[in-house]
Amino acid sequence: MRIDIITVLPELLESPFGASILKRAIEKGLVEVHMHNLRDYTDKSYNQVDDYQFGGGAGMVLMIEPIDKCIAALKAERDYDEIIYMTPDGETLNQKMANGLSLLKNVIILCGHYKGVDHRVREAYITKEISVGDYVLSGGELGAAIVCDAVIRLIPGVLNNETSALTDTFQDNLLAPPVYTRPSEYKGMKVPAILLSGNFKKIEEWREDEAQKRTERLRPDLME
Amino acid sequence: MRIDIITVLPELLESPFGASILKRAIEKGLVEVHMHNLRDYTDKSYNQVDDYQFGGGAGMVLMIEPIDKCIAALKAERDYDEIIYMTPDGETLNQKMANGLSLLKNVIILCGHYKGVDHRVREAYITKEISVGDYVLSGGELGAAIVCDAVIRLIPGVLNNETSALTDTFQDNLLAPPVYTRPSEYKGMKVPAILLSGNFKKIEEWREDEAQKRTERLRPDLME
Repeated sequence: MRIDIITVLPELLESPFGASILKRAIEKGLVEVHMHNLRDYTDKSYNQVDDYQFGGGAGMVLMIEPIDKCIAALKAERDYDEIIYMTPDGETLNQKMANGLSLLKNVIILCGHYKGVDHRVREAYITKEISVGDYVLSGGELGAAIVCDAVIRLIPGVLNNETSALTDTFQDNLLAPPVYTRPSEYKGMKVPAILLSGNFKKIEEWREDEAQKRTERLRPDLME
Repeated sequence: MRIDIITVLPELLESPFGASILKRAIEKGLVEVHMHNLRDYTDKSYNQVDDYQFGGGAGMVLMIEPIDKCIAALKAERDYDEIIYMTPDGETLNQKMANGLSLLKNVIILCGHYKGVDHRVREAYITKEISVGDYVLSGGELGAAIVCDAVIRLIPGVLNNETSALTDTFQDNLLAPPVYTRPSEYKGMKVPAILLSGNFKKIEEWREDEAQKRTERLRPDLME
């Protein structure tokens, strides 16, 4: 899988891709992530990429021309399955969408900033609009990092143990059961005895039961 | 506002707090963000902070002892309004929650990693569990960055123009209207004429109407 991220703040994304699982996935060659600084695609002075919005109002808007040029340059090199725009009014990311995205080959992610991008960009070039949740962020960069993290960890070989992602919350519309590790008692707080029993059949039943009960209590909407 | 982030991967969070709006908010003294490496709070060899889960199964679990020590050290210095744990089965972050969090004084955010933290941590020390959305991430770090970004930009003085955050999507349960900037025509694509009219009363009406129509079409659930 190849992901091209278009942003005015590539420096904001350095450390999320330079650490832990994403770093190892890139080093293993399981995914390529390329950052493109939108300022490299403008011929305006001071590398200007944004301007005031028509009709007045607070907040700058990213201009269509540099975005068009950047996307065109990428599309000249290869075909893309999706050209994604990160925006709070996009389709809300969930685990099912992440599963689907993890099967794609080439993806562009455009990060908005300030008040967003000129709306003509969204109508003319974008194939999918994604929101990571019902809240507003300074820009699309952290949203893009979230999408990449949620998707890349699903690519086979990225996690050390493939069963690890399959038992996660949401993969079966259930929240994960509680987990515990050593010590078995800490300041009077004990681990549930069943987990120390060595009876793996009973442990599996307990976990399924706990997952069910936690989901019913905390997220009944997932079970509908 | 002061935010203390407890993590096994402080390096993952460097660039989000070292760029753009979060960096400027910190430099202006409007918010303090402190990273705490959980490995500094263990006395195990190799700075071990995680262990296999009781009962078997894939994925490591963060141990209770270093977390307890780190939280205790912070609480000895000051009172905290919330001790937050980032987890996909927490309460889903939305703009209303971000507004509420932005009014707090001292907050701890604990980032899980691998399979999460020993459940006793959640029962004994955590006062609020937050999810940034219905998807699974490699760890709580990016979720913590999202919470910080959503919250810090709401602190008065952080954005250059205070009206900018108030006209965002979600602040009034409506999606934002489309925005446009120069040029007024690009490759045959024109900006809506009303925005070039100079009639600010009509422009305001158009924007309200567009916000309403976009919300009805894309997110009718927000209007219920």
